[in-house]
Amino acid sequence: MKLKITLFLSLLCATSLLKAQDSLMLRKIYDEELVNGHAYSDLHYLCKNIGQRISGSANAQKAVEWGKKLMESYGFDHVFLQEVMVPHWVRGAKEEAAIIDGKKRIPVQIVALGMSVATPKNGITADVVELHSLTQLDSLGESKLKGKIVFFNRPFDQKFIETFRAYGTAGDQRFLGPAAAAKYGVVGVIIRSLSGSDNDYPHTGATRVLTDGKNIPGAAMSTNTANRLSAMLKKNPAIKFYFKQNCQTLPDVLSYNVVGELKGTENPNKFIVVGGHLDSWDLAEGAHDDGTGVMGAVDAVRALKALGYRPKNTIRAVLFMNEENGDKGGIKYAELAAQNKEEHIAAIESDAGGFTPRGFGFTGLSADQLKNLDGWRKLFFPYYIDRLTPGGGGSDIGPLKEKSTGVVLIGLSPDSQRYFDVHHTPNDVFENVNKRELELGVAAMSSLIYLIDQHGF
Amino acid sequence: MKLKITLFLSLLCATSLLKAQDSLMLRKIYDEELVNGHAYSDLHYLCKNIGQRISGSANAQKAVEWGKKLMESYGFDHVFLQEVMVPHWVRGAKEEAAIIDGKKRIPVQIVALGMSVATPKNGITADVVELHSLTQLDSLGESKLKGKIVFFNRPFDQKFIETFRAYGTAGDQRFLGPAAAAKYGVVGVIIRSLSGSDNDYPHTGATRVLTDGKNIPGAAMSTNTANRLSAMLKKNPAIKFYFKQNCQTLPDVLSYNVVGELKGTENPNKFIVVGGHLDSWDLAEGAHDDGTGVMGAVDAVRALKALGYRPKNTIRAVLFMNEENGDKGGIKYAELAAQNKEEHIAAIESDAGGFTPRGFGFTGLSADQLKNLDGWRKLFFPYYIDRLTPGGGGSDIGPLKEKSTGVVLIGLSPDSQRYFDVHHTPNDVFENVNKRELELGVAAMSSLIYLIDQHGF
Repeated sequence: MKLKITLFLSLLCATSLLKAQDSLMLRKIYDEELVNGHAYSDLHYLCKNIGQRISGSANAQKAVEWGKKLMESYGFDHVFLQEVMVPHWVRGAKEEAAIIDGKKRIPVQIVALGMSVATPKNGITADVVELHSLTQLDSLGESKLKGKIVFFNRPFDQKFIETFRAYGTAGDQRFLGPAAAAKYGVVGVIIRSLSGSDNDYPHTGATRVLTDGKNIPGAAMSTNTANRLSAMLKKNPAIKFYFKQNCQTLPDVLSYNVVGELKGTENPNKFIVVGGHLDSWDLAEGAHDDGTGVMGAVDAVRALKALGYRPKNTIRAVLFMNEENGDKGGIKYAELAAQNKEEHIAAIESDAGGFTPRGFGFTGLSADQLKNLDGWRKLFFPYYIDRLTPGGGGSDIGPLKEKSTGVVLIGLSPDSQRYFDVHHTPNDVFENVNKRELELGVAAMSSLIYLIDQHGF
Repeated sequence: MKLKITLFLSLLCATSLLKAQDSLMLRKIYDEELVNGHAYSDLHYLCKNIGQRISGSANAQKAVEWGKKLMESYGFDHVFLQEVMVPHWVRGAKEEAAIIDGKKRIPVQIVALGMSVATPKNGITADVVELHSLTQLDSLGESKLKGKIVFFNRPFDQKFIETFRAYGTAGDQRFLGPAAAAKYGVVGVIIRSLSGSDNDYPHTGATRVLTDGKNIPGAAMSTNTANRLSAMLKKNPAIKFYFKQNCQTLPDVLSYNVVGELKGTENPNKFIVVGGHLDSWDLAEGAHDDGTGVMGAVDAVRALKALGYRPKNTIRAVLFMNEENGDKGGIKYAELAAQNKEEHIAAIESDAGGFTPRGFGFTGLSADQLKNLDGWRKLFFPYYIDRLTPGGGGSDIGPLKEKSTGVVLIGLSPDSQRYFDVHHTPNDVFENVNKRELELGVAAMSSLIYLIDQHGF
């Protein structure tokens, strides 16, 4: 009996020590980020010295080269590029233009949807049919749609607490709208920007490309313009809309994922990955989308190195290329991981903005592993990141799931309220990122990497 | 045995029904706020049509009158004013000025601390002693301080996760700095603004007034200016500093708390209070501090009325006057509550900015009552407000504790990362408030009021 008690006490003691050690390490990580963090100044460089970096652009190449140098400058054990062919869509040299053509001709701002085709050189002028869902296309049919411009104007559902759910449910208008309308003889699609706020700038973003080549142009207008157009159409359904855009898709371009790693001391061929996407849309600096994600991933690993941490498993920061309009980088990374027989323990993605983190979402955990999260919740509580929920991941790490066995996919969950104010707009700039919010997200990821590396799930 | 089981099942069933009812009501409250909320448009009016409203000002009086009309327009059962005498401090007609006087004369921006005295008409010019704590005053003593300007330059400790803790620990420099330095013959105090970010605008805020009348002027400079001055002093300790400010304290003015209530159907003389402060500093619009608090309090009650909710206890929205430089409104409210033998069940204060809420802090709960919070955490989880922690309240409701028995003091806890970027500065304007963040805070307060009204603690 005495032995049992001693054993029990020893175990208890060892567990307590372990917890104390973890707790101490998390505090060190947070101190490092909040006092010496580099993510904010690195983001400044990326936004202001490189700027927009859509896949295939010269800026995207600059970002690749700089990202590699950055990780080398931090003394990562190994920094390398992964070749990947990416789409090369360009908005075109001349400005986009649109006019609401009723009693007066009112110029309004539009932006072409990413991957969209251009209008004819003189633009498109047509009657407007306002719809609120894709299924309305099928109800109306070709007889009522042929030759028209379809205006998808379903707003965000404000009742969702998480704005990503509103984005998800309104998003088909942009993702699929032009492709779905094309078969009914529609000549162009304009959409209400995917945003929950009333603002004056249009939001771009990728739309589906039909492989049969029968694509029609798609563009977005601001939520305020959409409200205005809708009100005008109610008074005068005969209003015509004109728009012109000059975008085109050029031949694919050779680009790169940028990978930096700290070699595992025990299991060099087991990997914990943290990443975001290096490409951005072309309208601004890609600060929240996804500059904070890539600079955060690099700094989460840099912080561990700065603290002298020697990981058991290999830890990788990955700057994925081409999330916005193709996901080619994420797909390539997963292909190479399979090809090289790399065992991936976990992949963490940060692609929801650099706002105050609230926790993580997990995909691929067993019931036992889910239980384990309770201990981590306690460790995370003082840092306000104890919201650990099932489900989560990201576009870049998603392909790993198919190729690897047992990888846990994890998404950083920042506060979502402001993301769709700036997402894919000219306002996605450095000035809209708060230093401490960003640093707390980086520290959260670094802490999670440490715990996974130490304890697994 | 059978009876026992039946009883048990009935109880279980009743509890489940109750939970389902609560859950449903919370969903209704959130829907009302996120779809039909008035707080954001009311805040717009307060900020843009009234603007700054320091205690004793004509604008503060306008805010009182408008606040009363607003609650009347929402059909509250009873709306009334509580008379309270408040300090009347004014910054003065002429601009404040300051110069770093070294090899070159460099003009810099300062703002007088609230309640500070003016400098002499020609300003003050003196040698500068940079200090990082109040205790250094005692170490140096009169011999080294007499005739000097003391420059308190201790920065926020970035290691705190909650920025209010950094504010609390750096705050003595502003709260007590001038009063503490006065006794050593110091001629003026300049402080580093109470902010964790590097920015170019000074932050004002109240400083202690000595009753012996031997006050010395106190002013704040931006964190960037403080860094600059500190660097210059290191190179050249002989630098002189000049500053001039014209503020004065006029005779006290009659002002008002504004109170609106929904009468309790069962316990009309038991009260649940929700409030913020109507006064603001004079530099901007008092949007986050505390326009969001007062407009939120009004809308939290309006939402319940709009949903047809008939409270058991009387629910009050209180717009307190004079939190910023005197707390006279909060003190008066507590005095009247005691005088009128009003039993206060709970008082909720929102005075930490209109940012995404994360939960509430509670002061005055027994061990049993603390246990009760677990059930509420579950209800709050889908709304991201399940962080219910011991400790919390606010300056306006604080005096209730002394006067009432058993009142629970509660503070709304929004995300704190951005608050001290705008707090007490020209940047505390409507444009820096996000609509959904504000609405989520209002819905959180409304939900809590409902639960307290239904179940107590």
